[in-house]
Formats: sequence, structure tokens, C-alpha cells
Amino acid sequence: MINYKITVSYDGTRYKGWQVLKSGDNTIQGKLEQLLSRLTGQEMQVIGSGRTDGGVHAIGQTANFHLDPASAKKGLDAEKLSLSPEALMLYFNKYLPDDIAVTSCEEVPERFHARYGAKSKTYRYTIRTSPVPDVFRSRFVYAFRAYPLDVDLMKKAAASLLGEHDFTSFCGNRHFKKSAVRNIFSIDFSEVRDDKTWEILEIYIDYTGDGFLQNMIRIITGTLIEIGSGRREADSIPTLIRAKNRELAGFTAPASGLCLMKVEY
Amino acid sequence: MINYKITVSYDGTRYKGWQVLKSGDNTIQGKLEQLLSRLTGQEMQVIGSGRTDGGVHAIGQTANFHLDPASAKKGLDAEKLSLSPEALMLYFNKYLPDDIAVTSCEEVPERFHARYGAKSKTYRYTIRTSPVPDVFRSRFVYAFRAYPLDVDLMKKAAASLLGEHDFTSFCGNRHFKKSAVRNIFSIDFSEVRDDKTWEILEIYIDYTGDGFLQNMIRIITGTLIEIGSGRREADSIPTLIRAKNRELAGFTAPASGLCLMKVEY
Repeated sequence: MINYKITVSYDGTRYKGWQVLKSGDNTIQGKLEQLLSRLTGQEMQVIGSGRTDGGVHAIGQTANFHLDPASAKKGLDAEKLSLSPEALMLYFNKYLPDDIAVTSCEEVPERFHARYGAKSKTYRYTIRTSPVPDVFRSRFVYAFRAYPLDVDLMKKAAASLLGEHDFTSFCGNRHFKKSAVRNIFSIDFSEVRDDKTWEILEIYIDYTGDGFLQNMIRIITGTLIEIGSGRREADSIPTLIRAKNRELAGFTAPASGLCLMKVEY
Repeated sequence: MINYKITVSYDGTRYKGWQVLKSGDNTIQGKLEQLLSRLTGQEMQVIGSGRTDGGVHAIGQTANFHLDPASAKKGLDAEKLSLSPEALMLYFNKYLPDDIAVTSCEEVPERFHARYGAKSKTYRYTIRTSPVPDVFRSRFVYAFRAYPLDVDLMKKAAASLLGEHDFTSFCGNRHFKKSAVRNIFSIDFSEVRDDKTWEILEIYIDYTGDGFLQNMIRIITGTLIEIGSGRREADSIPTLIRAKNRELAGFTAPASGLCLMKVEY
């Protein structure tokens, strides 16, 4: 039994997210499993570090899967069940659609599990505030020009989100039954400015934590945008967390602006 | 009469090129003219620096158009025919689709003509040779992995293309009746390499000249790729130019890799 870890990059625009929920869904996991099944002639399962929502992108999603050379049926060669990581990566990138790529592949110890082993995840949310669109990246940003954003207010509010909290108020799944306690390690802001006018063109918000609930980063970002545009108080976050009520938080910022940057083990 | 010069950026993937050839064509020029006509209530013409083929992109396409406040019909306000460049740019970017943007707009002297006045144009052709796709830019490169490319051979061959020549051998329009003489000022190569392995990931070829025939850069690039992959002699260019025969040149490299970077006046 060989355990392979892969890093996957995707433009999520066309997909219903990472995970196969019902058969026929157009998902990243589904595409990878189809290719592996075609290669091996067996039903294959690819374990992702976690789901990403429909339309969300990834630079550093991670996943693992097992190939078992001993399971080769008589008459079928076992070679395809013991491919080198390099050969597997070439195979994936040859047959995957243009908007999915496997950017690394390595053999890992048998106990490695992409979901259970994940210690931290980093997501980037990109807000483009410039009145001039970047046509080459319009699928990968949230164009927000309705109000000017006060980034200092957003940073101040973000500080109250750090640490371990019950994030029920920021969970998009109203039927979520498990613990909504998560730990956000850091929320970092950076800005891209115009060379000449020094005007802010884009704002990146990098979120690192031990895990995130469904839509959590998008709802936090929507809430921070409302704060940055003066429509919500910067010091309202602690009350909002205590309320455990999704209705009180901000709007769900669009999926297009969100990208899973890396997963650490 | 006010003459406006605009810079236009577009992801050409969805379009049949810059220029309206027959009504109903999905073109960049058509989109701009539609918006101006809707604004002014008049039939409007937008003059581009030149055509770009279907699927070709632009960061710095330029164009001009005239608004004549004196032509306002009675009962219609003349304001829309004398908008400031800033207001016009905002109007365009508010209503243009996500894959077209006006990145600058200025008033220019009445004699300025985007096509006749163009002194030089620079195009970039991007070849991605890495076996790992960049999913965020797959629409903007030509992924070429069939053969390794010897960039030094390509540079050597490119040197023979510089200067004034009759480029009939590199013209995609077989019914072209006018002069095929063009002057290529420079062809510059640059490479993006992997930080660790120093392997070439992408090759940029920047072409600057006084103008280019239909498909000319794509046919030159196809020819250079054949040379770089050892399927054509690096010293074959002078003979090829003299032959004035499109059949003897290389394949037409895909539109996706080509981008009009800037037009100088």
C-alpha cells in the first residue's frame, strides 16, 4: 500500500466545490477520483484537507490517496498501482482540465491523512477596490467599489476574532450540529497600491487557523467590509461572537475572492 | 468636437477579436461602440490602433472617438456629449463585461488618430513549457510541452527577422493585396525559471515593430518554436522571407498566448 500526498491548484469558477456530495456533481475531488479510477481500474478515494465551497479557488489544497500494488487483478499489470510520484503528477496534469493542476506529488507514511493531520490552513481573500478592473484576474477577486474601505477599522475589528471562539455567528450551515469552536491564529492585511497615486487597488486578507466552518471566512470578510465601510461598529465583534446568531453577522462575501493558499501538517 | 483617447485591456478568450466585421459579431470594438451609443443616443465609431485576432488579449490596446456637444438634439442635454475623461472611464467600467476594461481615458488634440498615428506596437507571446499548468493563467499562455525548446537557437533565428522585410511568408491572410513590408524593431526573449530547479517555466517573446500583418506574430512564433525544438534550421529565416510563401513558414501559434502590450505615438 503506497500513500501519496498531492498539492492541488484550481480555478474554482466552474466547480461545485471540492467535495463530491451527490454523483454527477462537477467537483475537484470528483475529477481526481475519475482519473485515478481510469488509471487503476479500481474505485478510488481522494481525501482532501477539507472542503472548499463552490467557486472558491486553491493554490495549495492538499489531498492523499492510496494505491495498493498487491490488489492488482490477475492479468492486469501491477505497474499502474505502483507509479512513481513524478509519473502520477504527469498523468494528472496530462488529463486534468485546464483549470485544475497537481503541483506536487510525494510518497508519505501510511498514517498520513490529509484531513485529520491538518494543523493549520491559510486562506487569502482578495478585495479589488480599484475602479479599474483587472480583466486577467476578475474571476479571482471580489470587486467592491460601493464604499471606500477604512482598512484600519477592519484591522481593529479583526483583532477581536483572533484565538479560540465559538464561531456559530459566522457559520453558513444553519443545521451544523458539531462544535463550532475554531482557533484563528492570525488575520493579516496587505495592500497593493498604485505606483503613482498611492491609491489602494487591492486588499488581501490572509486568514490562518486550525480550521474554518462552512462560509466562515466569507462571512467574516463580509462583516469586516461592512465595518470598513462604516456600516457597522468596529467594536461590535465580541458581542457578535457571543450572540451565536448568523443573522447578526454581515453578508457572505462572494466565493470568487477566496483562495486556499496552504495547509500545514 | 472633443477627441478622447482610451487604453483598453481585455481577456480576448470570448471575443471574435477587436474589430466589428459583420453586425452581431462579439467584438471589443462593438462592445465599446454599443456603450457609447447608449450614452449619447447617436451612432458612435471607435477607432482602434489596429485589429487583434479572435482570442488575442490586450493590456494596452489604444483607441479614440469623438463626442460633439454641438450635435446634441433639442430637448436632450448636451452634458453626455461633453463628459470628462474620468466620468467616461467610470461609465465604461461600470457597464463593460468583466473581461474588458478601460484603463485610461484622456482628451487629445483633434488630429489624433489611433490607427494612423501609431508609431510602434509591442506584443508579448507567452509560451508555458512547465509540465505543471498555472490554472490561473491558462487562458493567457500557450502550453507547449511536446519538445524541449532551445531558446538560444530561437534568439539566433529571431535576429534574422529584425528590420524591414516583406513578411508575406508570415501573413495569415492569403488574399492580402497591400504592401506586406513591415519593420520589426526588436524581438526580446525573457524567461521565468523555477526558484529551486532553475528549470524554464515560461518564455516571453516581446515583439516591437511599426505594425504587424494578420497572424504575423503567431506565425513567426510558431516558426521559432519549430526551430527551438529542432524541427527547422535556425539559419532558414532569410530564405523563408525571400520565398514570400506562407506554406513554407511554421504553424500559427494559438491566439491564447498573444497579448498587445502597448502602442506608441
